Amino acid sequence: MTVITDTIRNGVDTEKLFVTLDLIRAQPELAKFQFRATNRWIDGAHNRSTIKGFYAAGGEDTTRSVEFVLDAGEPAILLGVDTGPNPAEYLLHALAACLTTTIVYVAAARKVRLTSVESTITGEMDVRGALGVDDEPRNGFSRIGVSFRVTGDAPEEKLREVVSRAQQRSAVYDMVTNGVPVAVEVTTD
Amino acid sequence: MTVITDTIRNGVDTEKLFVTLDLIRAQPELAKFQFRATNRWIDGAHNRSTIKGFYAAGGEDTTRSVEFVLDAGEPAILLGVDTGPNPAEYLLHALAACLTTTIVYVAAARKVRLTSVESTITGEMDVRGALGVDDEPRNGFSRIGVSFRVTGDAPEEKLREVVSRAQQRSAVYDMVTNGVPVAVEVTTD
Repeated sequence: MTVITDTIRNGVDTEKLFVTLDLIRAQPELAKFQFRATNRWIDGAHNRSTIKGFYAAGGEDTTRSVEFVLDAGEPAILLGVDTGPNPAEYLLHALAACLTTTIVYVAAARKVRLTSVESTITGEMDVRGALGVDDEPRNGFSRIGVSFRVTGDAPEEKLREVVSRAQQRSAVYDMVTNGVPVAVEVTTD
Repeated sequence: MTVITDTIRNGVDTEKLFVTLDLIRAQPELAKFQFRATNRWIDGAHNRSTIKGFYAAGGEDTTRSVEFVLDAGEPAILLGVDTGPNPAEYLLHALAACLTTTIVYVAAARKVRLTSVESTITGEMDVRGALGVDDEPRNGFSRIGVSFRVTGDAPEEKLREVVSRAQQRSAVYDMVTNGVPVAVEVTTD
């Protein structure tokens, strides 16, 4: 007799998810990850990151076959030629993407089947800070707003709980709201 | 008689840069920008942002002809199928890209011709936080390290000054080190 259980929910293998959580609970040292990017300046506002390797679960990952390439740029008004989204826009994408994935995973774990997750994210910036014209406005966004539309086979209250829990667990939401210590080293030869 | 002045340095039109700075100094309301992304969940850890419009210098930008499309994902160990870099890796890219562009612009303004700017950026994460296994480790990176190699036609001290000034002015460095208030709204229909 074969028992077929539907463990895939929202595209997430929940059986694998719970096995992963149990494994990390039992061996917390497996939870140490390091992500990386290398970046190279090309010209003007154009630079490019490549992303592939990372450290996870006690060793260097060997499963990723692709190398991701991301081009950054600036629009004309910020002296670029639109070779890619600008760095602040990449940060908005990182935040929207992390909240969305966390919503999807939390919903999967809580047996909520989602039908859609859409968001618009905006960041307000007074560019006098970053351009060095005035010390008063900060360099980055003064505030970020994210507007989600989430639908699925659960009552509104449950869907709101999922989003709320995702805010409590999202890695990028934590970093963008609370900040992270950043150490910068320089060599010149 | 035609006077040809070489105003392009590091791919940055420094004449246009100084005109822009003067304009914003004279009319600070032109410095109000809003950047945006819209994101849509596709399946599992796969979601996609589109980036095009932004508000700048008193109106909606009309110069950008391209729409940027960014796909996020997760590697197998985090239950995805590598449909793109993960959100935390996008944040590393945003930070490396912003510091790099700021280095290039600061150097251009200070008459330093750069020959290369390369960086490696790493972020350390205990994934027990984001996975909800343990409340103690934070969800995001505990620390980020950026290692720059910068070369150009200036003494080491000058190149280091440029990097130091870039840290003081980078929009994403400010946001990642200091945090930003984020407001999340949800609709469910």
